[in-house]
Amino acid sequence: MVRVAICAPSRAITQDVAQRVQALAADYPGIELQFHPQCFRSAGHFAGTDAERVEALAECANDSGFDAVWAARGGYGAARVVEDALGRFTAAAEQKTFLAYSDGGTLLGGLYRDRIGLPVHAPMPSDINRPGGEVAVRRVLGYLSGERGGLEPSLDHHPVAAFNLTTLAMLCGGPLMPGLAGHVVLIEEVSEHLYAVDRLFFHLTAHLGGVAGLRLGRVGDVLENDIEFGCDAEAIARHWCARHAIPYHGRADIGHDVANKIVPFGLAGREGAQ
Amino acid sequence: MVRVAICAPSRAITQDVAQRVQALAADYPGIELQFHPQCFRSAGHFAGTDAERVEALAECANDSGFDAVWAARGGYGAARVVEDALGRFTAAAEQKTFLAYSDGGTLLGGLYRDRIGLPVHAPMPSDINRPGGEVAVRRVLGYLSGERGGLEPSLDHHPVAAFNLTTLAMLCGGPLMPGLAGHVVLIEEVSEHLYAVDRLFFHLTAHLGGVAGLRLGRVGDVLENDIEFGCDAEAIARHWCARHAIPYHGRADIGHDVANKIVPFGLAGREGAQ
Repeated sequence: MVRVAICAPSRAITQDVAQRVQALAADYPGIELQFHPQCFRSAGHFAGTDAERVEALAECANDSGFDAVWAARGGYGAARVVEDALGRFTAAAEQKTFLAYSDGGTLLGGLYRDRIGLPVHAPMPSDINRPGGEVAVRRVLGYLSGERGGLEPSLDHHPVAAFNLTTLAMLCGGPLMPGLAGHVVLIEEVSEHLYAVDRLFFHLTAHLGGVAGLRLGRVGDVLENDIEFGCDAEAIARHWCARHAIPYHGRADIGHDVANKIVPFGLAGREGAQ
Repeated sequence: MVRVAICAPSRAITQDVAQRVQALAADYPGIELQFHPQCFRSAGHFAGTDAERVEALAECANDSGFDAVWAARGGYGAARVVEDALGRFTAAAEQKTFLAYSDGGTLLGGLYRDRIGLPVHAPMPSDINRPGGEVAVRRVLGYLSGERGGLEPSLDHHPVAAFNLTTLAMLCGGPLMPGLAGHVVLIEEVSEHLYAVDRLFFHLTAHLGGVAGLRLGRVGDVLENDIEFGCDAEAIARHWCARHAIPYHGRADIGHDVANKIVPFGLAGREGAQ
């Protein structure tokens, strides 16, 4: 039995989301989900106060009864809690799989920097609210059941990491930024103007010295500006990769959508590649 | 006679903007403005291609017939040209005053890091388009004429620097980031969600070790989210300053508005303070 603790380091989910995800989990007899009550708390923008979110995350990570910790939702907030929560993690956290994306990348980054457990860029329970969102949630339930069909298809002999562009840009040079030398870094973005995407790549690529390459996931729901930017997101990524001599490896099958594939960090789960 | 070259490292201005600013300058007999033709060029989002903007900026900086270089407008684009332009600056640039704000802070940051000339956070010609914008443009023309009434009122014995929050956050840890130890850093923002302001402060404050303090300018035109953030921009600034033991010095009189006061970097222009 794979026991999965779900907490919300960023924004809250509703009981309805939890119930619909539990209903899907009934199809996976090897999986047991437990939603921490903190998932439903509220404090302004966040799923409870900073202290409540630190407490819930540390509790889930340190409970040896769980095999995995799954972030319920993104939306911003992990930056306020991850450093303190990691400081409270015990040895029980080290064997766990941690799943998140979007703002949850702040947790994945900090875990990977500290070499705690296995960070996995993956859909979250809140994705059930997307049209057709069941397929995204099932991809994670399948992965946790041992299926490998949901893995991002470009994964090869390189260690990898995957992040939302803004989220990783905000980690650069700070105490949660993982070392990514030798890695292929997969980047996706959503709901930004292209000029902001360009600005974020300006910043991020200045911090990616030594990476093996960059892949661009989907850049969805691009905001319109009063002027056309003049090139698309892939041209932006190519521009900044070229500027910093980072090999551009093409597209990645990740994004803020139901097709968002699973990216275990490093070389995890790829037999023969380790 | 103070001769001022105007170019556009970011977005373009119209001939109408140039004419209205020139009309105001007629009231300042000690000031002569020259708009570089590049100000009116267009290449997608930008005031000409990256190469054209590098060329115009280097030309203005290296022309010993000018005493000051004034950025025409912000809006994003300086990140694509400043490093290359600075690499082409000659000794003629070292005696000049450089005026900009918003995206132009990328230029101010790079200049200050390289100790080239005097960077000044100040209104730009494009501010003439704001209601009552003449007062902002006149503030700069007065400053260049030797008036000191337009200086930001908190300036004291500390060296200072002023930036847009997003702009400085994108410089952190990169090749254009100036050393700000011992400085009071003035920060303003516009047109962002409060969660994004919080996220930017999370990032920025991790890079401001050793500063003497932080002052918060105006955080204007805050975008509405689907949920109230729960605290205001000043509470956000205080939170992140406390987290990093940065003294919070209160408010600053800068922002994306016509009241935006003038901040010469370092201790420039403050007799007795140097």
